Amino acid sequence: MRQYVSEAVIRRLPAYYRHLCALEAEGVLQISSGDLGERMRQTPSQIRQDINCFGGFGRQGYGYNVTELKNEIRRILGLDEEHAMIIIGAGSIGSAVAHYPSFVREGFRTLALFDIDPAKIGTTVNGIPVLSMDSLPDWLKTNRADIAVLAVPADRAEDVCGRLEACGIGAVWNFAPVDLEGKGGGAAIVNVHMSDSLHILSYKMRHR
Amino acid sequence: MRQYVSEAVIRRLPAYYRHLCALEAEGVLQISSGDLGERMRQTPSQIRQDINCFGGFGRQGYGYNVTELKNEIRRILGLDEEHAMIIIGAGSIGSAVAHYPSFVREGFRTLALFDIDPAKIGTTVNGIPVLSMDSLPDWLKTNRADIAVLAVPADRAEDVCGRLEACGIGAVWNFAPVDLEGKGGGAAIVNVHMSDSLHILSYKMRHR
Repeated sequence: MRQYVSEAVIRRLPAYYRHLCALEAEGVLQISSGDLGERMRQTPSQIRQDINCFGGFGRQGYGYNVTELKNEIRRILGLDEEHAMIIIGAGSIGSAVAHYPSFVREGFRTLALFDIDPAKIGTTVNGIPVLSMDSLPDWLKTNRADIAVLAVPADRAEDVCGRLEACGIGAVWNFAPVDLEGKGGGAAIVNVHMSDSLHILSYKMRHR
Repeated sequence: MRQYVSEAVIRRLPAYYRHLCALEAEGVLQISSGDLGERMRQTPSQIRQDINCFGGFGRQGYGYNVTELKNEIRRILGLDEEHAMIIIGAGSIGSAVAHYPSFVREGFRTLALFDIDPAKIGTTVNGIPVLSMDSLPDWLKTNRADIAVLAVPADRAEDVCGRLEACGIGAVWNFAPVDLEGKGGGAAIVNVHMSDSLHILSYKMRHR
């Protein structure tokens, strides 16, 4: 039985998934909350508390079954099904997303990029066609896209996001350096703040 | 007087900085922990607790001075000085970082990219020269680089990271999908897990 899952736990889920995938690849069958915590730099009690949110997985004196827990988190994250993506903006960030190899492996498949630049329309990026932004509403009538990757300049992001939602896009992965969350008309939105991790690196440099 | 700052607080610092910059740009002079918490989706007590780590900034019944707090967090993050960057790997991710406009505005200046591909060496990316990876040790004898952006394939990341540290690079911003933290020879390392926020988006789609 699923309990209420806080935003903080949700934010930690991908790290659990990553570490459990790595453990499985290393051939580890079971792991204690202490060992998993050490690996993830969390306290054992934090680990137990997080995992309890998804139902009891650990057994006293045994720990967690790595594959079982990994598969459950995979399912919770919705990674057990394929996602069709489109990328809005075929600039450097859109191209980088189109080239990123692990997204395809994880079931996130990019079907097309959309741009307003006539020089880009008709070309391909990593074998994926770049189509005209104007053709997007018609394209969506005959194609399904679960996720739109927003890789447009900051001053265009809110407008484009609204147009995507009007077309029925249910999820937006926003790389524009503006906070779109809460402004949307119902789509799930995650803002990627590229600078955040650079700022953390800057902090770590100063405070070593 | 600075107290011990936990990893969790450090991870939240960039978001504080972003929201305080936005508030300042909106002309807001002061803000209560309640209003800041609402904006940042944190409880007021979490906000007060975090900010107390850096010394007392709030005043009872007044809240925080936006510019004062922003400047203090900017200083804590080390954003009050320029950082020279080099990018290892002139592929799609390296190019995206070289094009990202806000890094320059925030004082992170990319001096050069380095690659092993003869077809790329000698070209420029966003006006920045692409040099031979072999020339890096010599280049570093006459140029200062604070941060190396690691944008190489996963199976090359650990080796390249070791070579960077041997050259005296003090900070590595790792885009390769491997966890380099703790493996380094002393450099500050932050791993960017591009998939993590995509997985959170997948979670939000499923649990809307």
